[in-house]
Amino acid sequence: MRDREALLIQTLQKSGASFGIGDDGVRIGELVYAMDAFNEGSHFKRGWMSLEKLAYKALAVNVSDLYAMNAKPLYALLSLSIPRDFSAKEVTSLSLGIAKACEAFGVKLIGGDTILSSLLGFSFTLIGQASKKTLQRRGMKGGDYLAYTGRVGDSLKGLTTLLRGGRLSSQSRFIRPTLRPKLIAEMTPWLRGGMDISDGIFFECERLSRLNHLGFYFTKPLPKRLGRSGEEYEMLLVIPPKNLSKIRRIAQKHRTPLHLFARAKRGSYRAPCLGHHS
Amino acid sequence: MRDREALLIQTLQKSGASFGIGDDGVRIGELVYAMDAFNEGSHFKRGWMSLEKLAYKALAVNVSDLYAMNAKPLYALLSLSIPRDFSAKEVTSLSLGIAKACEAFGVKLIGGDTILSSLLGFSFTLIGQASKKTLQRRGMKGGDYLAYTGRVGDSLKGLTTLLRGGRLSSQSRFIRPTLRPKLIAEMTPWLRGGMDISDGIFFECERLSRLNHLGFYFTKPLPKRLGRSGEEYEMLLVIPPKNLSKIRRIAQKHRTPLHLFARAKRGSYRAPCLGHHS
Repeated sequence: MRDREALLIQTLQKSGASFGIGDDGVRIGELVYAMDAFNEGSHFKRGWMSLEKLAYKALAVNVSDLYAMNAKPLYALLSLSIPRDFSAKEVTSLSLGIAKACEAFGVKLIGGDTILSSLLGFSFTLIGQASKKTLQRRGMKGGDYLAYTGRVGDSLKGLTTLLRGGRLSSQSRFIRPTLRPKLIAEMTPWLRGGMDISDGIFFECERLSRLNHLGFYFTKPLPKRLGRSGEEYEMLLVIPPKNLSKIRRIAQKHRTPLHLFARAKRGSYRAPCLGHHS
Repeated sequence: MRDREALLIQTLQKSGASFGIGDDGVRIGELVYAMDAFNEGSHFKRGWMSLEKLAYKALAVNVSDLYAMNAKPLYALLSLSIPRDFSAKEVTSLSLGIAKACEAFGVKLIGGDTILSSLLGFSFTLIGQASKKTLQRRGMKGGDYLAYTGRVGDSLKGLTTLLRGGRLSSQSRFIRPTLRPKLIAEMTPWLRGGMDISDGIFFECERLSRLNHLGFYFTKPLPKRLGRSGEEYEMLLVIPPKNLSKIRRIAQKHRTPLHLFARAKRGSYRAPCLGHHS
């Protein structure tokens, strides 16, 4: 996937058609936009959770992109692919999941469209209010610390359980990710960069490396089960050394674990392996 | 499709999650948003035209939604589903089509994402600058004239040719729709409503009927091959009687045929048959 995506972006950029691609979302004036697909086959299998929970997660992962830029979600558009064999009850479950997520995140659904398809698919566009300072992926400097918030690894564990035919509790982070807008808002002025972990820490580090033309050295070895775990939606933070104690204090105040694991250095970094959906 | 879409929208509206659904796009402050999927299987077959032309059309039909509200397209986000078996050459063709359309319509692609899938699919979100007066679907009054612009019917003819295994010239309206932003801009102050014809005149009339709680009487019988022809992207106009001569003059100035065919009356209207993609 990555090579074809890179080719697409490269061709588009050469033509002058695109710019700004690379962050979770893009800021234009006072608004931030993000668009992420969440599709059967690529991102989930239908039996993994109820349709209501799936729909909720589909919006939540898009909201995560806005939070990760320190923006406040306001509006959403949805292009929904509904399987041809869906009953009225199934359509209602989808609607309920979307409605619950809209309420939980304070988002109004303002438009979009629906099509019949062989697979279930959500493509949300989120529109958010930018804050004074937008958190971005570019701006990292040599010596900056890399850290992740909270707990990482549960998502891959949940996925493994599902792939083996097991079931997850509805409290599982894989079903309902933990988002941390208040923590992000308070930290942003002291950070040099940040993003949410959707494709696993290793792969997000590769993205940071490419965008910032820097590499990393790991101060703590990251086990594969952590580094490869995608769909975590915890935050990956780029912390300038002089603000490290400030960031630690904010994390403590929010009772959120902060795990420092690498520092930026000259060079480049490539992930040792692909994320779970390639 | 229509029943499931209606159920979805109804459930979402009851929950308070959504509003404003019904127009081609939605205006929020000075911006107008539109989102439309263009998917293999539902909207096209891959062999119907080159990948470059397909990608161009995918953006054009979204631009049409903004023009139909008298808005100027500025930015686009794209969620692109790329078939797993696509070669680098095929990805490049897609990029070229997108780039050409971006240039033709003055749109900058600012973000989105790509996923691997079994089918090719484009889901664009367009962001446009609203004009002083936005053209909408609501506002029709009894006695108003309905008219369509240009030539309608070619798209269904083109589709029929393709479904029979024939080929279309690259000049075909089915491949490259004719959009009329200048005409729309000049007419908007004198219109009571308008929309582009994406699902056929009959079905668009049904939409107008539902939104405005009015029916129609046909002053000129519309042959099925015209009324059912979708993906025309000509305009359907709602003209107050007092402005009819003004609208006629503007159409003449732009050398665009104007076909009056119905007037609004009390009651409701239901399309005699479905469009080609349901």
